[in-house]
Amino acid sequence: MSDETSPALRVAMAYHRAWTSKDLDQAMTYIAEDVVCDAPAGRIEGAGAYREFMTPFAQMLINADLIAAFGDDRQAVVMYDTETPLVKSGPGAECVTVADGKIVYSRFVFDRVPFQAARQANG
Amino acid sequence: MSDETSPALRVAMAYHRAWTSKDLDQAMTYIAEDVVCDAPAGRIEGAGAYREFMTPFAQMLINADLIAAFGDDRQAVVMYDTETPLVKSGPGAECVTVADGKIVYSRFVFDRVPFQAARQANG
Repeated sequence: MSDETSPALRVAMAYHRAWTSKDLDQAMTYIAEDVVCDAPAGRIEGAGAYREFMTPFAQMLINADLIAAFGDDRQAVVMYDTETPLVKSGPGAECVTVADGKIVYSRFVFDRVPFQAARQANG
Repeated sequence: MSDETSPALRVAMAYHRAWTSKDLDQAMTYIAEDVVCDAPAGRIEGAGAYREFMTPFAQMLINADLIAAFGDDRQAVVMYDTETPLVKSGPGAECVTVADGKIVYSRFVFDRVPFQAARQANG
């Protein structure tokens, strides 16, 4: 499933392993300073904003299961399922573009509905 | 980006091209009779239910842009953006498992929030 002969996938998977281990410092070493991420709620620009976006989710992560990971020289896609106190199964997919060993662009897809419902239920 | 030497990706892309061309009959030739699809709203089982699930979305599709497509012998991931009258940009990601030339399992990820919001706004 995972072909780590792809340079972009190596970076995407190193990033994935770091953030799912809650090691945000390590994860951010794979994120370019001027990263752009198109996420469900809108565009996130710059490594600082990206870290702020990822941190609360990484902190509450209970488990992440890899579903698929593929890539080529410059692009990789990683799909995984997540478990958090909010949502038992919250799958996500990231398509990242990598340059010089860092993620410069990420298209991030997940369903916000169960997360919003859980937050509303929690008051 | 797209490596169509992957048998699973060939099927995934043929399916993708068919449904995004609104040719549901052709699209369904790539879907196994006992397909299982885990979608944001829950599990869909069987080709009949799957076709019912896909048809309204395919019918209202204005445009689909491929973002990434990768695969190996048995699994493929396709990420794309969609434009419909409801939502200008509604990206989705499908990770499909292929056996005997047909999709037997699909993990389908997209954000339902903008679609729900548009339906509420439309009354």
